[in-house]
Amino acid sequence: MRKVVLLGTGSTKYGKLNVTAREAAVLAAKEAIEKVGISNRDVEAVFVSNVFGMTEKQGHLGPIIAHSLGIPYAPTFTVETACASGSTAFREAFVNIAAGFYDCILVVGTEKVSHLDTITATTYFSYGSDFAFEAVNGASFPGLYASIARYHMHKYGTTEEQLAAVAVKNHSNAIHNPKAHFHKKITVEDVLKSRVVASPLKLYDCCPFSDGASAAIIASEEFAKKHIDTLIYVLGTGRASAPAALFNRENMASIISSKLAAEQAFKNSRLTHKDIDFMEVHDCFTIAEVIAIEDMGFCKKGEGAKLAEEGVTEIDGKLPVNPSGGLKAKGHPVGATGVGQINEVYEQLLGEAGKRQVEGATTALTHNVGATGGTCNVLIFRRGD
Amino acid sequence: MRKVVLLGTGSTKYGKLNVTAREAAVLAAKEAIEKVGISNRDVEAVFVSNVFGMTEKQGHLGPIIAHSLGIPYAPTFTVETACASGSTAFREAFVNIAAGFYDCILVVGTEKVSHLDTITATTYFSYGSDFAFEAVNGASFPGLYASIARYHMHKYGTTEEQLAAVAVKNHSNAIHNPKAHFHKKITVEDVLKSRVVASPLKLYDCCPFSDGASAAIIASEEFAKKHIDTLIYVLGTGRASAPAALFNRENMASIISSKLAAEQAFKNSRLTHKDIDFMEVHDCFTIAEVIAIEDMGFCKKGEGAKLAEEGVTEIDGKLPVNPSGGLKAKGHPVGATGVGQINEVYEQLLGEAGKRQVEGATTALTHNVGATGGTCNVLIFRRGD
Repeated sequence: MRKVVLLGTGSTKYGKLNVTAREAAVLAAKEAIEKVGISNRDVEAVFVSNVFGMTEKQGHLGPIIAHSLGIPYAPTFTVETACASGSTAFREAFVNIAAGFYDCILVVGTEKVSHLDTITATTYFSYGSDFAFEAVNGASFPGLYASIARYHMHKYGTTEEQLAAVAVKNHSNAIHNPKAHFHKKITVEDVLKSRVVASPLKLYDCCPFSDGASAAIIASEEFAKKHIDTLIYVLGTGRASAPAALFNRENMASIISSKLAAEQAFKNSRLTHKDIDFMEVHDCFTIAEVIAIEDMGFCKKGEGAKLAEEGVTEIDGKLPVNPSGGLKAKGHPVGATGVGQINEVYEQLLGEAGKRQVEGATTALTHNVGATGGTCNVLIFRRGD
Repeated sequence: MRKVVLLGTGSTKYGKLNVTAREAAVLAAKEAIEKVGISNRDVEAVFVSNVFGMTEKQGHLGPIIAHSLGIPYAPTFTVETACASGSTAFREAFVNIAAGFYDCILVVGTEKVSHLDTITATTYFSYGSDFAFEAVNGASFPGLYASIARYHMHKYGTTEEQLAAVAVKNHSNAIHNPKAHFHKKITVEDVLKSRVVASPLKLYDCCPFSDGASAAIIASEEFAKKHIDTLIYVLGTGRASAPAALFNRENMASIISSKLAAEQAFKNSRLTHKDIDFMEVHDCFTIAEVIAIEDMGFCKKGEGAKLAEEGVTEIDGKLPVNPSGGLKAKGHPVGATGVGQINEVYEQLLGEAGKRQVEGATTALTHNVGATGGTCNVLIFRRGD
């Protein structure tokens, strides 16, 4: 198996964009190609991640994006695993490069939802749950994650203030991210006083609906060495599923796919938790960041909620989590999110993250969840010296 | 790279089914697992192909299918490349097995559209075109393929009778396929007299909207040898794109992605056109079968239309095409179609195709197109002796 390198990344701003998903994808892809300095013709395949293209009446995005980039014959496909689609597309690109099928692949995640009203968007999102058992009975994602949060509070004594601290931290980080959806400092009190969405989750516990696209170019080590100086290796990848419906889980406050995917990624990378300098985790709701850290084994189960409150997960803390601002404040354009996490890894590991730089970071992990954990992908990256 | 083997297949009947896409997928997958005689726990990953899940309010199908099969932690994803989705999922499974990421993968394509009326279904299908330029101006797939047909008639002298002969042959073959959508013999006159859909294409030039699911299990050679006696090798795979919109093509009567994908598949397999005993090609409209045969190089460009008329492509002809009945008469449940072609290959190469058996077939090709050729996948299979 060949070594695989993250060559470069590009991204639109996240938020409300006046472009379609296909246009956003092309913008992000062009930025990545230009930043890396390769020719568009070096890109041999285009792996797309998108979930709600149907709402814009556009499926089959791959050939359209490839043609717009001037490489109309490059093979493509669109991957969907709900909110984890971006990292799934990346993993498939990793497999294809590692195996030698291609030398250079563009992964681009894109989403446009701002043309939908909130109820419609929430409904479309709920198609990622086990709809026939969950959403059909009124349990859309805020309700499902509220159930997870309530159970976590009941079982481990987690408080609403602790969850609020996650939102405060991530908003604070996003202020320094020019591409983030929100640039707004908030306090614990702001979170606690915000409108209840699905108790105990309030508006500021929830990530926004965002438009946006992010791209990543990955290549074989041999190809990379011809084009760039500092190599960021994709050292570990892990993928797993869990029963789609919450009621089928043994412990509702845990996402077993996170645990399994992290175990695989650590095993492949031959690294340990202590090697991780920072991570981007899937904080679609504040409780999601807490259980991600726990399930991946960065603290004992039930002890994750303290970390934001105690400053451990801040950019200059012992274990920085979501320096980008996370889904919560950077935003969550579904198909783009998993690729956006990789954008953050790239900038951080090259020391280009400005005021949100994690000092001396050489090794990072991304954690991207689909729905309430039906899918989870974990990736581990390390800068070569 | 490891050798990859097609272990077995399963399929629902194609047509109007009273089950959801998720249920159909599980039925097809269970049939495949049982026929091969492995345990469900031998399946390490589930690659799904589906396009219109949103119309049933269900995305993120992978974890639901995996859980229903008793393997809730197996990683999954859903692939979409319009009507070529099934073969794209298969190709990704091939890559993962060849590279050693998994030893045994279930590929399952599934679709449910019979809950939509014809206009709605045609509209949803049109999302696979370059919607902003084509469908938005009224060019849905019957219209686009009618343009291809008209251009082919103009340029090469192809006749409506010749196109009708394709439909007659494929309907004739499907009579012997218990899982086909149609079991109805038709004549050239029936085709010519049928209602005009988009001139020169009439109703009997068009494939139906079908529900259905098809599954294929593929594995490493080492795994296969432990479980089955006769090995069907996946020898060649090819994938390519073309500009999604017809108006961007140099020759509107040719699908360049078919040409490129076939060239790749032949190169990988180290076989030539003469080695192919039969093929399943993407005949969503009669003209599509004609140009598929031409573009892949089985005859000169412009000479494909004679073949059905002259009996060359019949089951006992020199070059049997679509012994299953093809999309035209076996049916076209979009996400399932590419996997269904592989079902036919499996049955034929094992000599289990009954009255539609191509005598002595050891080597077969499948050709699966997305939209008007934005995507094309070609696969070549050969029975080991």
